[in-house]
Amino acid sequence: MQHQNPIFIPGPTNTPDVIKAAMNVSNFDHRAPDFADDYIPLLNDLKKVFKTETGQVLLFSATGTGGWEGAISNTLCAGDKVLIARYGMFIQRSIYLSQPFGLDVEVVECEWGTGAPVEEFAHRLRADKKGHIKAVLVTHNETATAVKSDVHGVRKAIDNASHSALLMVDAVSSLASMDFQMDAWGVDIAITGAQKGFMLNTGLAIVGVSPKAMAGTATATLPRCFFDFNDMANANKIGSYPYTPPVQLFNGLRASVSLLLNEGMSNVYARHHRIAEGVRAAVKAWGLELCAHSPELYSDTVTAIMVPEGKDANLITQHAYKAYGVSFGGGLGEMAGKLFRIGHLGAMTDVMVLSGIATAEMVMVDLGYNINLGSGVAAAQSVYRRGV
Amino acid sequence: MQHQNPIFIPGPTNTPDVIKAAMNVSNFDHRAPDFADDYIPLLNDLKKVFKTETGQVLLFSATGTGGWEGAISNTLCAGDKVLIARYGMFIQRSIYLSQPFGLDVEVVECEWGTGAPVEEFAHRLRADKKGHIKAVLVTHNETATAVKSDVHGVRKAIDNASHSALLMVDAVSSLASMDFQMDAWGVDIAITGAQKGFMLNTGLAIVGVSPKAMAGTATATLPRCFFDFNDMANANKIGSYPYTPPVQLFNGLRASVSLLLNEGMSNVYARHHRIAEGVRAAVKAWGLELCAHSPELYSDTVTAIMVPEGKDANLITQHAYKAYGVSFGGGLGEMAGKLFRIGHLGAMTDVMVLSGIATAEMVMVDLGYNINLGSGVAAAQSVYRRGV
Amino acid sequence: MQHQNPIFIPGPTNTPDVIKAAMNVSNFDHRAPDFADDYIPLLNDLKKVFKTETGQVLLFSATGTGGWEGAISNTLCAGDKVLIARYGMFIQRSIYLSQPFGLDVEVVECEWGTGAPVEEFAHRLRADKKGHIKAVLVTHNETATAVKSDVHGVRKAIDNASHSALLMVDAVSSLASMDFQMDAWGVDIAITGAQKGFMLNTGLAIVGVSPKAMAGTATATLPRCFFDFNDMANANKIGSYPYTPPVQLFNGLRASVSLLLNEGMSNVYARHHRIAEGVRAAVKAWGLELCAHSPELYSDTVTAIMVPEGKDANLITQHAYKAYGVSFGGGLGEMAGKLFRIGHLGAMTDVMVLSGIATAEMVMVDLGYNINLGSGVAAAQSVYRRGV
Amino acid sequence: MQHQNPIFIPGPTNTPDVIKAAMNVSNFDHRAPDFADDYIPLLNDLKKVFKTETGQVLLFSATGTGGWEGAISNTLCAGDKVLIARYGMFIQRSIYLSQPFGLDVEVVECEWGTGAPVEEFAHRLRADKKGHIKAVLVTHNETATAVKSDVHGVRKAIDNASHSALLMVDAVSSLASMDFQMDAWGVDIAITGAQKGFMLNTGLAIVGVSPKAMAGTATATLPRCFFDFNDMANANKIGSYPYTPPVQLFNGLRASVSLLLNEGMSNVYARHHRIAEGVRAAVKAWGLELCAHSPELYSDTVTAIMVPEGKDANLITQHAYKAYGVSFGGGLGEMAGKLFRIGHLGAMTDVMVLSGIATAEMVMVDLGYNINLGSGVAAAQSVYRRGV
Repeated sequence: MQHQNPIFIPGPTNTPDVIKAAMNVSNFDHRAPDFADDYIPLLNDLKKVFKTETGQVLLFSATGTGGWEGAISNTLCAGDKVLIARYGMFIQRSIYLSQPFGLDVEVVECEWGTGAPVEEFAHRLRADKKGHIKAVLVTHNETATAVKSDVHGVRKAIDNASHSALLMVDAVSSLASMDFQMDAWGVDIAITGAQKGFMLNTGLAIVGVSPKAMAGTATATLPRCFFDFNDMANANKIGSYPYTPPVQLFNGLRASVSLLLNEGMSNVYARHHRIAEGVRAAVKAWGLELCAHSPELYSDTVTAIMVPEGKDANLITQHAYKAYGVSFGGGLGEMAGKLFRIGHLGAMTDVMVLSGIATAEMVMVDLGYNINLGSGVAAAQSVYRRGV
Repeated sequence: MQHQNPIFIPGPTNTPDVIKAAMNVSNFDHRAPDFADDYIPLLNDLKKVFKTETGQVLLFSATGTGGWEGAISNTLCAGDKVLIARYGMFIQRSIYLSQPFGLDVEVVECEWGTGAPVEEFAHRLRADKKGHIKAVLVTHNETATAVKSDVHGVRKAIDNASHSALLMVDAVSSLASMDFQMDAWGVDIAITGAQKGFMLNTGLAIVGVSPKAMAGTATATLPRCFFDFNDMANANKIGSYPYTPPVQLFNGLRASVSLLLNEGMSNVYARHHRIAEGVRAAVKAWGLELCAHSPELYSDTVTAIMVPEGKDANLITQHAYKAYGVSFGGGLGEMAGKLFRIGHLGAMTDVMVLSGIATAEMVMVDLGYNINLGSGVAAAQSVYRRGV
Repeated sequence: MQHQNPIFIPGPTNTPDVIKAAMNVSNFDHRAPDFADDYIPLLNDLKKVFKTETGQVLLFSATGTGGWEGAISNTLCAGDKVLIARYGMFIQRSIYLSQPFGLDVEVVECEWGTGAPVEEFAHRLRADKKGHIKAVLVTHNETATAVKSDVHGVRKAIDNASHSALLMVDAVSSLASMDFQMDAWGVDIAITGAQKGFMLNTGLAIVGVSPKAMAGTATATLPRCFFDFNDMANANKIGSYPYTPPVQLFNGLRASVSLLLNEGMSNVYARHHRIAEGVRAAVKAWGLELCAHSPELYSDTVTAIMVPEGKDANLITQHAYKAYGVSFGGGLGEMAGKLFRIGHLGAMTDVMVLSGIATAEMVMVDLGYNINLGSGVAAAQSVYRRGV
Repeated sequence: MQHQNPIFIPGPTNTPDVIKAAMNVSNFDHRAPDFADDYIPLLNDLKKVFKTETGQVLLFSATGTGGWEGAISNTLCAGDKVLIARYGMFIQRSIYLSQPFGLDVEVVECEWGTGAPVEEFAHRLRADKKGHIKAVLVTHNETATAVKSDVHGVRKAIDNASHSALLMVDAVSSLASMDFQMDAWGVDIAITGAQKGFMLNTGLAIVGVSPKAMAGTATATLPRCFFDFNDMANANKIGSYPYTPPVQLFNGLRASVSLLLNEGMSNVYARHHRIAEGVRAAVKAWGLELCAHSPELYSDTVTAIMVPEGKDANLITQHAYKAYGVSFGGGLGEMAGKLFRIGHLGAMTDVMVLSGIATAEMVMVDLGYNINLGSGVAAAQSVYRRGV
């Protein structure tokens, strides 16, 4: 029966019935003349979720990681310098991704638990008089540490330095759950996957591309084919797709975008924020610390909770799964064993997350933590209570 | 997103994915020669869930109410006397069902919150020297008050009076969730529906019939056709069905029986008991009373919680649904407004029910109850905690 | 792979993906305040399919057979006379159904392959000066012989005799596929099931009831409970249901009604007619005879094909299933072995039925019939061809 | 209703219910300790379908095109020479794919309708004394022309020339439908997608890699990240996955592999061959020509049919879709307008394909082709008939 429990990982998420139904259609002919009738409006509606009017959204049959690879290979050349701050596992993956492509990665080392170092970026960009830095890569919501970065701030740093670098953003665990404004924030490439805020099965890299980034493909010499932005954009223009499209995910995505736009993006953000506030209240009630260093960094889609010195956080995820059938996120990279994570994005409600908080309490008490049963739940309930 | 919440009504239940998948098959030909290859083993396996070797299980395309009608119309004659104690809404329904058939219902009035009055039954059966009472009708688990009756005790009362009355049991909200032993307890007809312990969609009356009850159809003169036991039993003998069968539900039922038998019936009972114990601990922590008068009456599939004098329990279910998207059961019949119910049967886990308990707390606090947030959750967690 | 083949039985039908998805929802709370928001409009839309404005449509968790039982038990008394013509297996079932209820069935024996004997009915109704006949029972589309009866003619016969008998119609295999006009034809009770023209899973008796039939429940003394029309109608008035409703089927029915009304009822009828005309053209090309005696009797949802003297039609259905994985309907009752049936109602297209015709040809040739492969297909193709 | 028709495109295919159900599961935690319990056996069972014992099978969240990119980028260096014969659209795609990676493509121009030119390959390989050719790329089943190539013959040509070139095979539309023997034929990399012989939704590149190909990754300098074979293989060793896996497709793939192995691979091949033979018999009866030049080239998963001089094949696919709701494949590349294709792979039966043949006939007659209705169907029926 434990498969009945919600999952509390920071993606894949729990999926609404209506989206599951939308993905459960038979294969149909993607070369049929009416394929475009659904596909083109879908691409247009996605722009509302990305909050872009000038850019376009591309859908690759892959995961967010594939989207990152496409971002790099479509806009850069071997030897190009990119500026990245290392403050978590997923931004580190973009460093890792950059290496096989022969990029010259300028790494700003940051403490995990902090976000993109806007001031340091500003400094380095100003210093880069010759414009060697071709792109700044930022993870909007660092899933490993539950830290939100100031993407708009990074853009301002670039602009204030009168720098031409592209701003590429991993929005995998923020988009469609937390405020994200592609145009207003000057994002050139924004990447997410199907299985996060869109609440679908895994299998889509969903990539927002600005006109500037698209223009940059003309001079970018890195090899690409499957993730070629122009092949995709050109096919999209006529409502077509350069290879066999994952039509079930497209169908699900239409249902997802409808759900999101009907709820209203600001309501979606508010729901995630309220849920997250409750989880953070629970953490405080437990007397534990967040990995995120300060409130403006707090993520609304995942909460990363430091365990006390001497404790092994891996035991929490293992015991939760084995004893209660509940999946939490573990610590990754340098945070392995030091924190565990409660994911609360996508098809999540106050009611559902309370069972996650309650389970975390039982697990910690089982493991000898000095925690009062019910304490975190009560704190979260105070946040979630409605009036009558 | 609120449709993502589990439901906490005492049926229909939450349904496991694997059962949903089993019900999601296309129509197929129920007259095909291999239809019986699945159907006959299913009927046999159901006997293991009913714990009968001598009886048989019949599947009608209806609900439990239809099963009750069949129990009456197949075994009794107009004017026959039946003995029923009125201690809740669902046993009252069997009184209601008996009336159009012209039965002479001998009603034992009981306080709601108590169960079948074994001693009074014994008294009346002993007094019925001429055997006017043809059947004793009992609800094993009275869903409206969350009270379990001593079915085995009723059988002993019948036998001790050397009486020949049939024992007919509404096991709708107990079977496949709470201990039920058709043969050992001498039950002649046991009735349940698809949407309770079997965790299916609504649409099956699942009826266990003893050889004695089946023999009784020969002299029973009440009209019946759709619910005719002999038509069904005769068709079943050759793996056939007297009209179009609901094959998707049969498919789901096979998946359900597999799940149950794989978990082991005693483990299924233990899981429901543990979950119920946690809910009762929560009620105690809240300082509220159960409707059930004493521990041996406690149901393991539903908990009925009295609200304090002056409170309207209907506000709880209304507010829970409207503000939190959570469905609890309300008070029925003479308990309307006096109690609310948390259903916890079927595809339910400790983790899931904690969110129901937490929601009930928020709702009651919202409504001005003198309850501490987290208090009931903490009490339940103490029950649910595993060691490491 | 043979489960991939369409089924060619006269119900259950093939089900559209969108309806399967609509039935594949989790259980939800039927006592929730918004249950009525979907249920009441559904009941209203169903009236458009039944073509009634004055009547109402009731949904029982059962099959069409249960609907028949309800029609009888809600409107008649033991000893009442009903007029029925025996011209097929399913109208015979209504005779069978009438017996346990102690009705006095006046049977008009007719040759199978003919329909309701309007003239003979007229004669008997005129002769029944004292109004002993309380109801005339007709099967609109006799599934066993693929014969359509003139329901409107029967009503005229009743009216012309100034008779007050109720007109009860088994519209199981016609409604939502063939023209049916409850009000215009003066039908008092019309019955169908979910798994025919509505293309759902089995499990609903869908019953149209005229005001006159409803009024008749006041004096009808036959026992009924599960199928009580007043219990259901009263509950429906407030958007409620007297017992646990099969909500997944309701959801599916909403999708079905949308599909039907969007296609347009007259287009639905025209599609079924065209498909049936093609099948009949195939039969003619094979040199075989229909069971139906004359064109005005031809059914548009199923075709019953006589096999030549000396052939056993059961071998056709058996061989089709075993060798090709295709289900046809067999001969029933006195037509057993004499005919086989191709069902073509519900989610059926010209393209799909061609594979059924082609399979029938292969089967017959395998069995030594003097049939040319492709001959029936060609005849049907001539009917199905579109211009360019 | 036209969405009810089977699809007759050469992939994506029709999907069995049981596979659809397997893909319709909720997201679960891919980092849970029991993830590997299903994943590792799946990878092992896939080897039976690829018929490899020494190789391994990798599953990328992408399509077959992504698999091709991975084959190239993991084993080759910029400037490497690859030998490719251009005899169809999909092998041409591998030429296209090779270009951005800076490969030196030695193209052997062939007539479309022929297959891999074994003799010419043999000649060129023998002439390549210095071993500049690093890989020979072959499409086993050229979907655009319905031509099967002699993959084993190409391997023999390589070996006979004592050449060390890798043999990379696009088996997208053959694997799991037509005989394919990775080890026995000496294939180094074999690529397919989920939506063909495996009958799944689109979204997996399924890649068989020989030990030699794997060893070649050590010296291959082309950039790769998402499709990195070593990252994947290393993760697989511990039952893990380098990024978020498409778990629903994995679940479906398990169901698919079970279906295939239960049917038996040789029975799967025989079924496809029989179906294809029927389609080819129909083409002959129509008096039309196949694109494939000779019988040993005939594909068993798709049939490409040349239209007579002066006809536009595109009108066939357009009219079939618009008038009958049936999807055929059109002509691609230099075959555009010259041929149309009937796909018959995956979840296909004799019965289903007959409706495709019948539809093609109607379409062609509608368009003025000199074809007798029923003629192709009759020819196919002769192939499909079983004895009794």
